[in-house]
Amino acid sequence: MTHSNALSVTELAQLVGGEVIGNGSITIERIANLETAEAHEVAYVDNEKFFAAARESRASCLLVPLGAQLEVAETSLIEVKNPKLAFAVIGAALHPAKQREPQIHATASVATTADIALTAYLGPNVCVGEFSSIGAGTRIESGVVIGDNVSIGAGCVIHPNVVLYDGVSIRNNVILHAAVCIGADGFGYVRDNMGYHKFPQIGTVVIEDDVEIGAHTCIDRAALGQTRIGRGTKLDNMVHVGHNCDIGERVVIAAQTGISGSVVIEDDAVIGGQVGFGDHTRVQKGAIIGSKAGILPGKIVRPGVWWGIPIQPLDEYKRLNAHIGRLPRMREELKELRQKVKELEERFK
Amino acid sequence: MTHSNALSVTELAQLVGGEVIGNGSITIERIANLETAEAHEVAYVDNEKFFAAARESRASCLLVPLGAQLEVAETSLIEVKNPKLAFAVIGAALHPAKQREPQIHATASVATTADIALTAYLGPNVCVGEFSSIGAGTRIESGVVIGDNVSIGAGCVIHPNVVLYDGVSIRNNVILHAAVCIGADGFGYVRDNMGYHKFPQIGTVVIEDDVEIGAHTCIDRAALGQTRIGRGTKLDNMVHVGHNCDIGERVVIAAQTGISGSVVIEDDAVIGGQVGFGDHTRVQKGAIIGSKAGILPGKIVRPGVWWGIPIQPLDEYKRLNAHIGRLPRMREELKELRQKVKELEERFK
Amino acid sequence: MTHSNALSVTELAQLVGGEVIGNGSITIERIANLETAEAHEVAYVDNEKFFAAARESRASCLLVPLGAQLEVAETSLIEVKNPKLAFAVIGAALHPAKQREPQIHATASVATTADIALTAYLGPNVCVGEFSSIGAGTRIESGVVIGDNVSIGAGCVIHPNVVLYDGVSIRNNVILHAAVCIGADGFGYVRDNMGYHKFPQIGTVVIEDDVEIGAHTCIDRAALGQTRIGRGTKLDNMVHVGHNCDIGERVVIAAQTGISGSVVIEDDAVIGGQVGFGDHTRVQKGAIIGSKAGILPGKIVRPGVWWGIPIQPLDEYKRLNAHIGRLPRMREELKELRQKVKELEERFK
Repeated sequence: MTHSNALSVTELAQLVGGEVIGNGSITIERIANLETAEAHEVAYVDNEKFFAAARESRASCLLVPLGAQLEVAETSLIEVKNPKLAFAVIGAALHPAKQREPQIHATASVATTADIALTAYLGPNVCVGEFSSIGAGTRIESGVVIGDNVSIGAGCVIHPNVVLYDGVSIRNNVILHAAVCIGADGFGYVRDNMGYHKFPQIGTVVIEDDVEIGAHTCIDRAALGQTRIGRGTKLDNMVHVGHNCDIGERVVIAAQTGISGSVVIEDDAVIGGQVGFGDHTRVQKGAIIGSKAGILPGKIVRPGVWWGIPIQPLDEYKRLNAHIGRLPRMREELKELRQKVKELEERFK
Repeated sequence: MTHSNALSVTELAQLVGGEVIGNGSITIERIANLETAEAHEVAYVDNEKFFAAARESRASCLLVPLGAQLEVAETSLIEVKNPKLAFAVIGAALHPAKQREPQIHATASVATTADIALTAYLGPNVCVGEFSSIGAGTRIESGVVIGDNVSIGAGCVIHPNVVLYDGVSIRNNVILHAAVCIGADGFGYVRDNMGYHKFPQIGTVVIEDDVEIGAHTCIDRAALGQTRIGRGTKLDNMVHVGHNCDIGERVVIAAQTGISGSVVIEDDAVIGGQVGFGDHTRVQKGAIIGSKAGILPGKIVRPGVWWGIPIQPLDEYKRLNAHIGRLPRMREELKELRQKVKELEERFK
Repeated sequence: MTHSNALSVTELAQLVGGEVIGNGSITIERIANLETAEAHEVAYVDNEKFFAAARESRASCLLVPLGAQLEVAETSLIEVKNPKLAFAVIGAALHPAKQREPQIHATASVATTADIALTAYLGPNVCVGEFSSIGAGTRIESGVVIGDNVSIGAGCVIHPNVVLYDGVSIRNNVILHAAVCIGADGFGYVRDNMGYHKFPQIGTVVIEDDVEIGAHTCIDRAALGQTRIGRGTKLDNMVHVGHNCDIGERVVIAAQTGISGSVVIEDDAVIGGQVGFGDHTRVQKGAIIGSKAGILPGKIVRPGVWWGIPIQPLDEYKRLNAHIGRLPRMREELKELRQKVKELEERFK
């Protein structure tokens, strides 16, 4: 289904700075799993646990760690420092992302004041508002709605039905999956005795270079100022990012995590799925937060591994869980002890 | 609002293999709740608890269990083995799903290489990519975006703004609610000291016959191989299914549950809402997992009822929760005991 | 980016019933944060904690509490009872919501039986089904799909790619953010030994006046009867509301909360994010439920503050959590006590 190129083992080795062991002239067409790979396919192995399986593999080429000393009769090897990374690089070469010829589809609705690069692709039914700009080589798929004063850089892929509200900025090489929503109003109201009045939501959102955002993720605009997703950060599907959040660079956030307003997540944090953040929390550089954790408003999360609701250091979480598991025995012991004390008391009363 | 047919009580009884008690010639136009039903409406009762309410009902017809011996002067009864199931069958007969005349709307964008059945309906702004196929009687509502090499079977209903990425397969009689997203890239990266590199996501997704998927649910394509949703499985709204998951047949998954990569859920499992699955877990046939549960990566969930974070057998969960609830009293008892021991020690020192 | 009006300090004071202290003739163009405000901007301060920051502010105008006695040389003050509310009102005046000239875009697909107010705006690719109606001044943005027999009142804003299924009712001054889905089928099936049969979902949804619904929130139609969102209620992003729910007036529900079928939430309740409700629960007027809480099916939640899974009164939750935190010490104490009792026993055996 996916278009694929074909390259020789030697060409692949050059691509990843690896060394060929065996026949370098075999043609490789596809990447595959170790277990299911066939002729003209390349797989990888990065752990001795799987060396036995590697020896059984029918792949034409295997990416293996330096000095792996895997003897496989029929298979060419490429020794490389990081086989999994090499596999990713080779995958991108063999199965390049879809290319589209530059085009503005006849059914697209583009404001006359919009600035569309000549090499951009705009699919069917795409809408682009006043004074918005789209950079070179950017691909905007069907049904994407782009408001006024939106800026999209070069080399981006915007999948179908994404919505970009007025004024948001998407930098370069950003991937937004289907139905992502950037720039909806933050959730802020002022209550009086009549009910709720909308607090102004007139800030914006900035998505920096090399960010990838999963399907259906929503990132709200700032009330005032900006919501930011830092360079190289990756968000999974259905993540919620509230108004005025500042997410740093190379942060990873798994699916369905929810981030309340004004949360700061510093560079290189790793956040599991279904995590919930109270507003104004700060996650420090390099912290790791397990799935389903809950963080109380205003909390500062220091580097380390965190877990639970509310979050605790993982070690402590495990220790307390073990204590809870021992509660039935503790209760028994307490009962026995009461009996013994009672007997002692009776003997000496 | 919904179009409805009209059928006699006798015709309804034939439809569900039931027996008429009373007047079979009355015309029934709509299904209704026991409490609010009026003339020409049919309701059901499947539990003696509600027999009193049934006797008060103004429905023209009631579906009742075999041998219910409900004496209701003005109301025709249909005795049937499973009144709720009969109600569902009768509901479908009285209120048939919307029919659309075959059509490719003038605003649809359909690739010339696409293969559209003559009896299919394609609404406004539908996009169909190269080499995709759409089966007989399938209804594709407005704004649906279908990529290249997508296969959709017969008798499907694809609600508005659904997105099907390149290469996914939808079998027969599948219902996809609004904005469902099938086939977005899985969440996989390889980290090095520069940041995250995208791991290849070149697999696909297969949705088997008779599956219904709730609004906004996202099912990611496999990295390699396929993500599968088995025959007759039902997913609620906003469920996340990660890359390479294999969900069996007749599985039910409630809203907002998140399933990480490479999870296997065997046939007939029942999963509550807001559950979170770590990657590579396996849920065995017939297991039941309560809402909000959390399952650690790699866990095997055996048949039975499971609850909590991390999951435990329901009985154990309840028992430990009871122990936690008794902690304040335990602490009191411990304090008293210390006092008594202290007194004993002092008497004999 | 946002269009803004300009008003004098005196005009702003009249708008909010406040009293000017200082120069009333200065022109104000924008709202801003206290810390970043510049000339021609207005900020607010409602807490003495921030009076020092207020004295440093470069804003041309500050909204302050009555009798604040803030002496700021260069800045005009407006004394007002509720500065934050005044700020919201002034924000709306300086930065009015986007206006669109009445229009039915050339690419819109509108059924001939639909009734569109002359002052309504329908953007590109909007679809409106048979017998649907759209009220005066309502703005329907690009890609919105409106089914048959849908009623939308006056003064509404329907953001891009929203889907309204057949027969739903949206009253007046309602805001629906991008990709909201109203009226998809509820999640109801009847199981027999063949698998799951769809339970009829032929009810509807009513969204009352002044409701605002966040991006990607899904509200299912009732099986029979209606699902209701009461007047002035505000839902955040990605909330799930199941079939037959009845949500009262002025209720606030934060992001990613999931509400099972037939749940009743009475007026003025406040619900955090990622909360999960079992079916048939009832939340009484004015109850407050903390984020990530879980409510068992059928539970009645009385007024007060609730927390945890399953929910408990906040005080109790905190108390039990403290007990759990003391478990390691309790275990030590128990051990010591056993030792002492053993010694006593040995002395007297």
